[in-house]
Amino acid sequence: MTARMSTNDASAPWQATVLTLYPEMFPGPLGVSLSGDALDRGAWALTARNIRGHGLGRHRSVDDTPAGGGAGMVLRCDVLAAAIDAASGPGDPRPRLLMSPRGRPLTQERVRALAAGPGLVVVCGRFEGVDERVIAGRGLEEVSIGDYVLSGGEIAAMVLIDACVRLLPGVMGKEASGVEESFENGRLEYPHYTRPRDWEGRAIPEVLTGGNHAAIARWRADEALRLTRERRPDLLDRA
Amino acid sequence: MTARMSTNDASAPWQATVLTLYPEMFPGPLGVSLSGDALDRGAWALTARNIRGHGLGRHRSVDDTPAGGGAGMVLRCDVLAAAIDAASGPGDPRPRLLMSPRGRPLTQERVRALAAGPGLVVVCGRFEGVDERVIAGRGLEEVSIGDYVLSGGEIAAMVLIDACVRLLPGVMGKEASGVEESFENGRLEYPHYTRPRDWEGRAIPEVLTGGNHAAIARWRADEALRLTRERRPDLLDRA
Repeated sequence: MTARMSTNDASAPWQATVLTLYPEMFPGPLGVSLSGDALDRGAWALTARNIRGHGLGRHRSVDDTPAGGGAGMVLRCDVLAAAIDAASGPGDPRPRLLMSPRGRPLTQERVRALAAGPGLVVVCGRFEGVDERVIAGRGLEEVSIGDYVLSGGEIAAMVLIDACVRLLPGVMGKEASGVEESFENGRLEYPHYTRPRDWEGRAIPEVLTGGNHAAIARWRADEALRLTRERRPDLLDRA
Repeated sequence: MTARMSTNDASAPWQATVLTLYPEMFPGPLGVSLSGDALDRGAWALTARNIRGHGLGRHRSVDDTPAGGGAGMVLRCDVLAAAIDAASGPGDPRPRLLMSPRGRPLTQERVRALAAGPGLVVVCGRFEGVDERVIAGRGLEEVSIGDYVLSGGEIAAMVLIDACVRLLPGVMGKEASGVEESFENGRLEYPHYTRPRDWEGRAIPEVLTGGNHAAIARWRADEALRLTRERRPDLLDRA
Protein backbone atom coordinates (compact mmCIF):
# COMPACT_ATOMS: atom_id res chain seq x y z
CA MET A 1 0.00 0.00 0.00
CA THR A 2 2.69 2.47 1.01
CA ALA A 3 4.62 1.75 -2.18
CA ARG A 4 1.79 3.32 -4.16
CA MET A 5 1.76 6.47 -2.09
CA SER A 6 4.33 9.20 -2.06
CA THR A 7 4.71 11.95 0.52
CA ASN A 8 5.56 14.69 -1.90
CA ASP A 9 5.77 13.78 -5.53
CA ALA A 10 6.47 16.87 -7.61
CA SER A 11 5.98 14.90 -10.84
CA ALA A 12 2.40 13.92 -9.92
CA PRO A 13 0.01 16.36 -11.52
CA TRP A 14 -2.68 15.98 -8.87
CA GLN A 15 -2.00 15.09 -5.26
CA ALA A 16 -4.47 14.03 -2.58
CA THR A 17 -3.42 13.98 1.06
CA VAL A 18 -5.86 12.40 3.50
CA LEU A 19 -5.64 12.96 7.26
CA THR A 20 -7.36 10.11 9.04
CA LEU A 21 -7.31 7.87 12.10
CA TYR A 22 -7.59 4.91 9.73
CA PRO A 23 -4.89 5.27 7.06
CA GLU A 24 -5.21 1.52 6.39
CA MET A 25 -8.52 2.26 4.65
CA PHE A 26 -6.54 3.86 1.80
CA PRO A 27 -6.19 3.46 -1.11
CA GLY A 28 -8.89 0.78 -0.63
CA PRO A 29 -11.41 1.07 -3.48
CA LEU A 30 -9.38 3.98 -4.91
CA GLY A 31 -6.63 1.44 -5.65
CA VAL A 32 -8.88 -0.56 -8.01
CA SER A 33 -10.32 0.00 -11.50
CA LEU A 34 -10.26 3.48 -13.05
CA SER A 35 -8.74 5.41 -10.14
CA GLY A 36 -6.41 2.53 -9.24
CA ASP A 37 -5.07 2.23 -12.78
CA ALA A 38 -4.51 5.99 -12.84
CA LEU A 39 -2.74 5.78 -9.46
CA ASP A 40 -0.48 3.01 -10.77
CA ARG A 41 0.35 5.13 -13.85
CA GLY A 42 1.20 8.13 -11.66
CA ALA A 43 -1.65 10.24 -13.06
CA TRP A 44 -2.34 11.21 -9.46
CA ALA A 45 -0.78 10.54 -6.05
CA LEU A 46 -2.28 9.63 -2.70
CA THR A 47 -0.87 10.05 0.79
CA ALA A 48 -2.80 8.84 3.83
CA ARG A 49 -1.44 10.29 7.09
CA ASN A 50 -2.40 9.12 10.54
CA ILE A 51 -3.70 11.92 12.76
CA ARG A 52 -2.71 9.78 15.73
CA GLY A 53 0.93 10.45 14.88
CA HIS A 54 0.27 13.87 16.42
CA GLY A 55 -1.65 12.52 19.41
CA LEU A 56 -0.76 13.56 22.94
CA GLY A 57 1.05 11.63 25.65
CA ARG A 58 1.95 8.02 25.95
CA HIS A 59 -1.40 6.91 24.51
CA ARG A 60 -1.24 9.34 21.58
CA SER A 61 -4.64 10.63 22.60
CA VAL A 62 -6.47 12.56 19.86
CA ASP A 63 -9.87 13.28 21.39
CA ASP A 64 -11.58 14.38 24.56
CA THR A 65 -15.11 14.75 25.97
CA PRO A 66 -17.32 17.53 24.58
CA ALA A 67 -17.31 20.84 26.46
CA GLY A 68 -20.77 21.27 27.95
CA GLY A 69 -21.37 17.51 28.10
CA GLY A 70 -23.03 15.07 25.75
CA ALA A 71 -22.34 11.78 24.02
CA GLY A 72 -19.27 10.87 22.01
CA MET A 73 -15.80 12.30 21.78
CA VAL A 74 -14.48 15.36 19.96
CA LEU A 75 -11.22 15.50 17.98
CA ARG A 76 -8.88 18.03 19.63
CA CYS A 77 -8.08 21.19 17.67
CA ASP A 78 -4.42 21.22 18.70
CA VAL A 79 -3.85 17.62 17.56
CA LEU A 80 -5.64 18.12 14.25
CA ALA A 81 -3.85 21.44 13.62
CA ALA A 82 -0.49 19.75 14.17
CA ALA A 83 -1.42 17.01 11.71
CA ILE A 84 -2.56 19.57 9.14
CA ASP A 85 0.57 21.69 9.58
CA ALA A 86 2.81 18.65 9.11
CA ALA A 87 0.95 17.56 5.95
CA SER A 88 0.48 20.92 4.31
CA GLY A 89 2.87 23.80 4.87
CA PRO A 90 2.17 27.50 4.25
CA GLY A 91 3.33 27.20 0.61
CA ASP A 92 0.93 24.37 -0.21
CA PRO A 93 -1.54 25.68 -2.83
CA ARG A 94 -4.03 22.88 -2.27
CA PRO A 95 -7.42 23.59 -0.71
CA ARG A 96 -8.02 22.03 2.70
CA LEU A 97 -11.34 20.29 3.07
CA LEU A 98 -13.13 18.79 6.04
CA MET A 99 -15.68 16.10 5.22
CA SER A 100 -18.71 16.97 7.34
CA PRO A 101 -22.49 16.63 7.07
CA ARG A 102 -22.63 20.32 8.05
CA GLY A 103 -20.64 21.37 5.00
CA ARG A 104 -21.64 22.79 1.65
CA PRO A 105 -23.17 20.02 -0.47
CA LEU A 106 -20.69 18.71 -3.03
CA THR A 107 -21.65 19.39 -6.64
CA GLN A 108 -20.21 18.29 -9.97
CA GLU A 109 -19.23 21.92 -10.53
CA ARG A 110 -17.10 21.95 -7.35
CA VAL A 111 -15.64 18.57 -8.35
CA ARG A 112 -14.59 20.00 -11.73
CA ALA A 113 -12.91 22.96 -10.03
CA LEU A 114 -11.05 20.71 -7.57
CA ALA A 115 -9.95 18.37 -10.37
CA ALA A 116 -8.57 21.35 -12.31
CA GLY A 117 -6.46 22.41 -9.31
CA PRO A 118 -3.26 21.00 -7.78
CA GLY A 119 -5.02 18.40 -5.61
CA LEU A 120 -6.43 18.54 -2.12
CA VAL A 121 -5.83 17.99 1.57
CA VAL A 122 -8.80 16.21 3.16
CA VAL A 123 -9.45 15.89 6.90
CA CYS A 124 -11.64 12.95 7.90
CA GLY A 125 -13.57 13.43 11.13
CA ARG A 126 -14.57 10.59 13.43
CA PHE A 127 -16.31 10.46 16.81
CA GLU A 128 -18.90 13.14 17.52
CA GLY A 129 -17.04 15.75 15.46
CA VAL A 130 -13.97 17.96 15.46
CA ASP A 131 -13.33 20.95 17.70
CA GLU A 132 -14.93 23.85 15.84
CA ARG A 133 -11.93 26.15 16.31
CA VAL A 134 -9.65 24.21 13.98
CA ILE A 135 -12.00 24.95 11.07
CA ALA A 136 -11.36 28.69 11.17
CA GLY A 137 -7.87 28.26 12.61
CA ARG A 138 -6.66 26.24 9.63
CA GLY A 139 -9.03 27.52 6.94
CA LEU A 140 -10.90 24.27 6.39
CA GLU A 141 -13.68 24.19 3.82
CA GLU A 142 -16.49 21.98 5.14
CA VAL A 143 -17.85 19.72 2.41
CA SER A 144 -20.83 17.38 2.63
CA ILE A 145 -21.37 14.55 0.17
CA GLY A 146 -25.08 14.31 1.05
CA ASP A 147 -27.81 14.65 3.65
CA TYR A 148 -27.03 11.58 5.71
CA VAL A 149 -24.55 10.70 8.45
CA LEU A 150 -21.58 8.34 8.10
CA SER A 151 -19.42 6.73 10.78
CA GLY A 152 -16.49 8.88 9.63
CA GLY A 153 -15.16 11.04 6.85
CA GLU A 154 -13.06 8.36 5.16
CA ILE A 155 -15.62 6.94 2.72
CA ALA A 156 -16.79 10.51 2.03
CA ALA A 157 -13.18 11.44 1.17
CA MET A 158 -13.07 8.47 -1.21
CA VAL A 159 -16.22 9.74 -2.92
CA LEU A 160 -14.69 13.19 -3.35
CA ILE A 161 -11.35 11.86 -4.61
CA ASP A 162 -12.91 9.35 -7.01
CA ALA A 163 -15.15 12.05 -8.48
CA CYS A 164 -12.10 14.28 -9.06
CA VAL A 165 -9.70 11.62 -10.33
CA ARG A 166 -11.99 10.41 -13.14
CA LEU A 167 -11.89 13.96 -14.55
CA LEU A 168 -8.09 14.22 -14.58
CA PRO A 169 -6.50 14.39 -18.04
CA GLY A 170 -6.18 10.96 -19.64
CA VAL A 171 -7.99 9.03 -16.91
CA MET A 172 -11.27 8.36 -18.73
CA GLY A 173 -9.86 8.45 -22.24
CA LYS A 174 -10.91 11.01 -24.81
CA GLU A 175 -14.08 9.20 -25.90
CA ALA A 176 -15.81 9.37 -22.53
CA SER A 177 -15.24 13.00 -21.79
CA GLY A 178 -17.94 13.21 -19.19
CA VAL A 179 -19.73 15.91 -21.13
CA GLU A 180 -22.93 13.91 -21.71
CA GLU A 181 -23.57 12.82 -18.17
CA SER A 182 -25.73 13.68 -15.21
CA PHE A 183 -25.46 17.22 -13.78
CA GLU A 184 -23.78 18.65 -16.87
CA ASN A 185 -26.15 21.33 -18.21
CA GLY A 186 -28.31 20.83 -15.12
CA ARG A 187 -29.88 17.62 -16.47
CA LEU A 188 -29.96 14.00 -15.44
CA GLU A 189 -28.61 11.64 -18.06
CA TYR A 190 -30.90 10.02 -20.65
CA PRO A 191 -31.56 6.23 -20.49
CA HIS A 192 -29.13 3.75 -22.02
CA TYR A 193 -29.82 0.56 -23.92
CA THR A 194 -27.70 -2.14 -25.51
CA ARG A 195 -28.13 -5.62 -26.95
CA PRO A 196 -30.29 -7.70 -26.93
CA ARG A 197 -32.89 -5.72 -28.88
CA ASP A 198 -35.72 -7.60 -27.13
CA TRP A 199 -35.53 -8.78 -23.55
CA GLU A 200 -38.39 -10.25 -21.51
CA GLY A 201 -40.91 -8.46 -23.71
CA ARG A 202 -39.11 -5.13 -23.41
CA ALA A 203 -37.69 -3.67 -26.65
CA ILE A 204 -35.08 -0.98 -27.19
CA PRO A 205 -36.93 2.23 -28.20
CA GLU A 206 -37.20 2.16 -32.01
CA VAL A 207 -35.62 5.55 -32.58
CA LEU A 208 -32.31 4.27 -31.14
CA THR A 209 -32.01 1.48 -33.68
CA GLY A 210 -33.20 3.50 -36.69
CA GLY A 211 -29.88 5.14 -37.54
CA ASN A 212 -31.27 8.70 -37.71
CA HIS A 213 -28.68 10.54 -35.66
CA ALA A 214 -30.58 13.81 -35.45
CA ALA A 215 -33.65 11.96 -34.19
CA ILE A 216 -31.54 10.07 -31.66
CA ALA A 217 -29.99 13.29 -30.34
CA ARG A 218 -33.45 14.86 -30.08
CA TRP A 219 -34.88 11.80 -28.27
CA ARG A 220 -31.99 11.80 -25.79
CA ALA A 221 -32.35 15.51 -25.04
CA ASP A 222 -36.11 15.07 -24.57
CA GLU A 223 -35.64 12.08 -22.27
CA ALA A 224 -33.02 13.89 -20.19
CA LEU A 225 -35.39 16.81 -19.75
CA ARG A 226 -38.35 14.56 -18.98
CA LEU A 227 -36.42 12.57 -16.37
CA THR A 228 -35.10 15.72 -14.75
CA ARG A 229 -38.58 17.28 -14.61
CA GLU A 230 -40.00 14.12 -13.08
CA ARG A 231 -37.26 13.37 -10.58
CA ARG A 232 -35.26 16.49 -9.90
CA PRO A 233 -37.11 19.67 -10.84
CA ASP A 234 -34.76 21.45 -8.40
CA LEU A 235 -31.91 20.97 -10.89
CA LEU A 236 -33.84 22.86 -13.57
CA ASP A 237 -34.60 25.71 -11.18
CA ARG A 238 -30.91 26.00 -10.39
CA ALA A 239 -29.70 26.09 -14.02
CA MET B 1 -11.82 -11.32 3.06
CA THR B 2 -14.22 -14.09 2.06
CA ALA B 3 -14.02 -15.51 5.57
CA ARG B 4 -15.85 -12.44 6.81
CA MET B 5 -18.63 -12.74 4.26
CA SER B 6 -21.33 -15.33 4.17
CA THR B 7 -23.60 -16.09 1.25
CA ASN B 8 -26.73 -16.58 3.29
CA ASP B 9 -26.43 -16.20 7.01
CA ALA B 10 -29.85 -16.59 8.59
CA SER B 11 -28.48 -15.58 12.00
CA ALA B 12 -27.25 -12.18 10.75
CA PRO B 13 -29.85 -9.56 11.55
CA TRP B 14 -28.99 -7.31 8.60
CA GLN B 15 -27.54 -8.55 5.34
CA ALA B 16 -26.02 -6.52 2.52
CA THR B 17 -25.42 -8.15 -0.86
CA VAL B 18 -23.43 -6.12 -3.36
CA LEU B 19 -23.40 -6.92 -7.08
CA THR B 20 -20.27 -5.50 -8.62
CA LEU B 21 -17.58 -6.05 -11.25
CA TYR B 22 -15.01 -5.37 -8.51
CA PRO B 23 -15.85 -7.63 -5.54
CA GLU B 24 -12.26 -7.18 -4.35
CA MET B 25 -13.19 -3.64 -3.29
CA PHE B 26 -15.26 -5.16 -0.45
CA PRO B 27 -15.32 -5.02 2.50
CA GLY B 28 -12.55 -2.42 2.04
CA PRO B 29 -13.24 0.51 4.37
CA LEU B 30 -16.37 -1.27 5.62
CA GLY B 31 -14.05 -3.87 7.18
CA VAL B 32 -12.40 -1.26 9.44
CA SER B 33 -13.47 0.72 12.52
CA LEU B 34 -17.16 0.91 13.49
CA SER B 35 -18.63 -1.07 10.58
CA GLY B 36 -15.70 -3.51 10.53
CA ASP B 37 -15.98 -4.27 14.25
CA ALA B 38 -19.72 -4.83 13.80
CA LEU B 39 -19.02 -7.11 10.81
CA ASP B 40 -16.54 -9.13 12.89
CA ARG B 41 -19.12 -9.47 15.67
CA GLY B 42 -21.76 -10.66 13.19
CA ALA B 43 -24.00 -7.64 13.77
CA TRP B 44 -24.37 -7.52 10.00
CA ALA B 45 -23.21 -9.60 7.03
CA LEU B 46 -21.75 -8.65 3.69
CA THR B 47 -21.64 -10.61 0.44
CA ALA B 48 -19.94 -9.18 -2.63
CA ARG B 49 -20.88 -11.04 -5.83
CA ASN B 50 -19.16 -10.65 -9.16
CA ILE B 51 -21.55 -9.72 -11.98
CA ARG B 52 -18.99 -11.17 -14.37
CA GLY B 53 -19.88 -14.63 -13.07
CA HIS B 54 -22.99 -14.23 -15.22
CA GLY B 55 -21.14 -12.81 -18.23
CA LEU B 56 -21.63 -14.24 -21.71
CA GLY B 57 -19.36 -16.46 -23.75
CA ARG B 58 -15.73 -17.37 -23.35
CA HIS B 59 -14.81 -13.84 -22.28
CA ARG B 60 -17.67 -13.53 -19.79
CA SER B 61 -18.74 -10.35 -21.52
CA VAL B 62 -21.01 -8.13 -19.43
CA ASP B 63 -21.40 -5.00 -21.56
CA ASP B 64 -21.97 -3.82 -25.11
CA THR B 65 -22.01 -0.56 -27.11
CA PRO B 66 -24.94 1.83 -26.54
CA ALA B 67 -27.91 1.52 -28.89
CA GLY B 68 -28.01 4.72 -30.95
CA GLY B 69 -24.27 5.27 -30.60
CA GLY B 70 -22.18 7.30 -28.19
CA ALA B 71 -19.22 6.89 -25.85
CA GLY B 72 -18.72 4.18 -23.28
CA MET B 73 -20.25 0.78 -22.74
CA VAL B 74 -23.59 -0.24 -21.25
CA LEU B 75 -24.10 -3.13 -18.81
CA ARG B 76 -26.40 -5.69 -20.45
CA CYS B 77 -29.84 -6.20 -18.91
CA ASP B 78 -29.78 -9.98 -19.35
CA VAL B 79 -26.42 -10.35 -17.59
CA LEU B 80 -27.40 -8.05 -14.72
CA ALA B 81 -30.80 -9.73 -14.35
CA ALA B 82 -29.14 -13.14 -14.09
CA ALA B 83 -26.79 -11.80 -11.41
CA ILE B 84 -29.71 -10.30 -9.48
CA ASP B 85 -31.79 -13.47 -9.76
CA ALA B 86 -28.91 -15.58 -8.46
CA ALA B 87 -28.29 -13.25 -5.50
CA SER B 88 -31.86 -12.53 -4.52
CA GLY B 89 -34.66 -14.99 -5.15
CA PRO B 90 -38.38 -14.22 -5.23
CA GLY B 91 -38.70 -14.80 -1.47
CA ASP B 92 -35.98 -12.30 -0.59
CA PRO B 93 -37.62 -9.45 1.37
CA ARG B 94 -34.71 -7.05 0.89
CA PRO B 95 -35.11 -3.96 -1.27
CA ARG B 96 -33.01 -3.90 -4.45
CA LEU B 97 -31.17 -0.67 -5.06
CA LEU B 98 -29.19 0.64 -8.00
CA MET B 99 -26.62 3.30 -7.17
CA SER B 100 -27.08 5.95 -9.85
CA PRO B 101 -26.70 9.73 -10.12
CA ARG B 102 -30.17 9.70 -11.69
CA GLY B 103 -31.74 8.22 -8.57
CA ARG B 104 -33.65 9.73 -5.69
CA PRO B 105 -31.21 11.59 -3.43
CA LEU B 106 -30.38 9.53 -0.33
CA THR B 107 -31.59 11.06 2.93
CA GLN B 108 -31.06 10.17 6.57
CA GLU B 109 -34.76 9.28 6.69
CA ARG B 110 -34.33 6.68 3.93
CA VAL B 111 -31.18 5.40 5.67
CA ARG B 112 -33.15 4.90 8.90
CA ALA B 113 -35.84 2.96 7.04
CA LEU B 114 -33.28 0.74 5.29
CA ALA B 115 -31.42 0.10 8.56
CA ALA B 116 -34.69 -0.97 10.19
CA GLY B 117 -35.31 -3.53 7.41
CA PRO B 118 -33.75 -6.94 6.68
CA GLY B 119 -30.81 -5.54 4.69
CA LEU B 120 -30.36 -4.68 1.04
CA VAL B 121 -29.25 -5.86 -2.37
CA VAL B 122 -27.18 -3.17 -4.11
CA VAL B 123 -26.27 -3.13 -7.78
CA CYS B 124 -23.16 -1.10 -8.65
CA GLY B 125 -23.08 0.29 -12.17
CA ARG B 126 -19.89 0.90 -14.14
CA PHE B 127 -19.19 2.08 -17.69
CA GLU B 128 -21.68 4.52 -19.20
CA GLY B 129 -24.59 2.99 -17.31
CA VAL B 130 -26.87 -0.02 -17.18
CA ASP B 131 -29.49 -1.01 -19.72
CA GLU B 132 -32.62 0.85 -18.64
CA ARG B 133 -34.86 -2.20 -19.01
CA VAL B 134 -33.36 -4.08 -16.05
CA ILE B 135 -34.50 -1.29 -13.70
CA ALA B 136 -38.19 -1.96 -14.31
CA GLY B 137 -37.61 -5.63 -15.10
CA ARG B 138 -36.11 -6.34 -11.68
CA GLY B 139 -37.75 -3.59 -9.64
CA LEU B 140 -34.59 -1.66 -8.87
CA GLU B 141 -34.85 1.52 -6.78
CA GLU B 142 -32.40 4.09 -8.16
CA VAL B 143 -30.57 5.87 -5.34
CA SER B 144 -28.17 8.78 -5.65
CA ILE B 145 -25.75 9.73 -2.89
CA GLY B 146 -25.28 13.23 -4.30
CA ASP B 147 -25.15 15.53 -7.33
CA TYR B 148 -21.80 14.44 -8.72
CA VAL B 149 -20.56 11.55 -10.86
CA LEU B 150 -18.35 8.68 -9.66
CA SER B 151 -16.40 6.12 -11.69
CA GLY B 152 -18.76 3.42 -10.44
CA GLY B 153 -21.37 2.54 -7.87
CA GLU B 154 -19.04 0.74 -5.47
CA ILE B 155 -17.97 3.66 -3.26
CA ALA B 156 -21.56 4.91 -3.34
CA ALA B 157 -22.70 1.49 -2.08
CA MET B 158 -20.14 1.77 0.73
CA VAL B 159 -21.60 5.14 1.69
CA LEU B 160 -25.10 3.68 1.80
CA ILE B 161 -24.06 0.60 3.77
CA ASP B 162 -21.92 2.54 6.26
CA ALA B 163 -24.78 4.97 6.91
CA CYS B 164 -27.13 2.04 7.60
CA VAL B 165 -24.76 -0.11 9.65
CA ARG B 166 -23.97 2.58 12.21
CA LEU B 167 -27.69 2.71 13.04
CA LEU B 168 -28.05 -1.05 13.61
CA PRO B 169 -28.79 -2.07 17.23
CA GLY B 170 -25.66 -2.11 19.38
CA VAL B 171 -23.29 -0.75 16.75
CA MET B 172 -22.86 2.79 18.09
CA GLY B 173 -23.54 1.94 21.72
CA LYS B 174 -26.43 3.40 23.63
CA GLU B 175 -24.75 6.69 24.47
CA ALA B 176 -24.32 7.86 20.89
CA SER B 177 -27.83 7.17 19.70
CA GLY B 178 -27.54 9.42 16.69
CA VAL B 179 -30.47 11.50 17.89
CA GLU B 180 -28.52 14.75 18.26
CA GLU B 181 -26.86 14.82 14.88
CA SER B 182 -27.21 16.48 11.51
CA PHE B 183 -30.50 15.98 9.61
CA GLU B 184 -32.42 14.79 12.66
CA ASN B 185 -35.21 17.34 13.20
CA GLY B 186 -34.19 19.00 9.93
CA ARG B 187 -31.20 20.76 11.48
CA LEU B 188 -27.46 20.69 11.05
CA GLU B 189 -25.58 19.77 14.19
CA TYR B 190 -24.34 22.45 16.61
CA PRO B 191 -20.56 23.09 16.94
CA HIS B 192 -18.39 20.94 19.18
CA TYR B 193 -15.54 21.94 21.47
CA THR B 194 -13.17 20.11 23.77
CA ARG B 195 -9.94 20.78 25.65
CA PRO B 196 -7.84 22.91 25.64
CA ARG B 197 -10.03 25.79 26.81
CA ASP B 198 -7.86 28.32 24.96
CA TRP B 199 -6.13 27.57 21.68
CA GLU B 200 -4.30 30.06 19.50
CA GLY B 201 -6.37 32.90 20.94
CA ARG B 202 -9.64 31.05 20.40
CA ALA B 203 -11.62 30.16 23.54
CA ILE B 204 -14.42 27.66 24.06
CA PRO B 205 -17.70 29.65 24.26
CA GLU B 206 -18.22 30.52 27.95
CA VAL B 207 -21.68 29.03 28.20
CA LEU B 208 -20.28 25.55 27.53
CA THR B 209 -17.91 25.64 30.49
CA GLY B 210 -20.36 27.31 32.93
CA GLY B 211 -22.18 24.17 34.02
CA ASN B 212 -25.69 25.56 33.40
CA HIS B 213 -27.23 22.66 31.52
CA ALA B 214 -30.39 24.48 30.49
CA ALA B 215 -28.31 27.34 29.08
CA ILE B 216 -26.08 24.85 27.24
CA ALA B 217 -29.07 23.10 25.70
CA ARG B 218 -30.51 26.47 24.64
CA TRP B 219 -27.19 27.60 23.14
CA ARG B 220 -26.85 24.37 21.18
CA ALA B 221 -30.39 24.58 19.81
CA ASP B 222 -29.82 28.21 18.82
CA GLU B 223 -26.51 27.41 17.12
CA ALA B 224 -28.01 24.46 15.22
CA LEU B 225 -30.79 26.72 13.96
CA ARG B 226 -28.38 29.55 13.08
CA LEU B 227 -26.04 27.21 11.15
CA THR B 228 -28.94 25.64 9.29
CA ARG B 229 -30.38 29.07 8.37
CA GLU B 230 -26.99 30.23 7.13
CA ARG B 231 -25.91 27.13 5.25
CA ARG B 232 -28.94 25.04 4.43
CA PRO B 233 -32.18 27.02 4.54
CA ASP B 234 -33.59 24.31 2.24
CA LEU B 235 -33.60 21.88 5.19
CA LEU B 236 -35.83 24.23 7.20
CA ASP B 237 -38.22 24.61 4.27
CA ARG B 238 -38.47 20.83 4.03
CA ALA B 239 -39.20 20.21 7.73
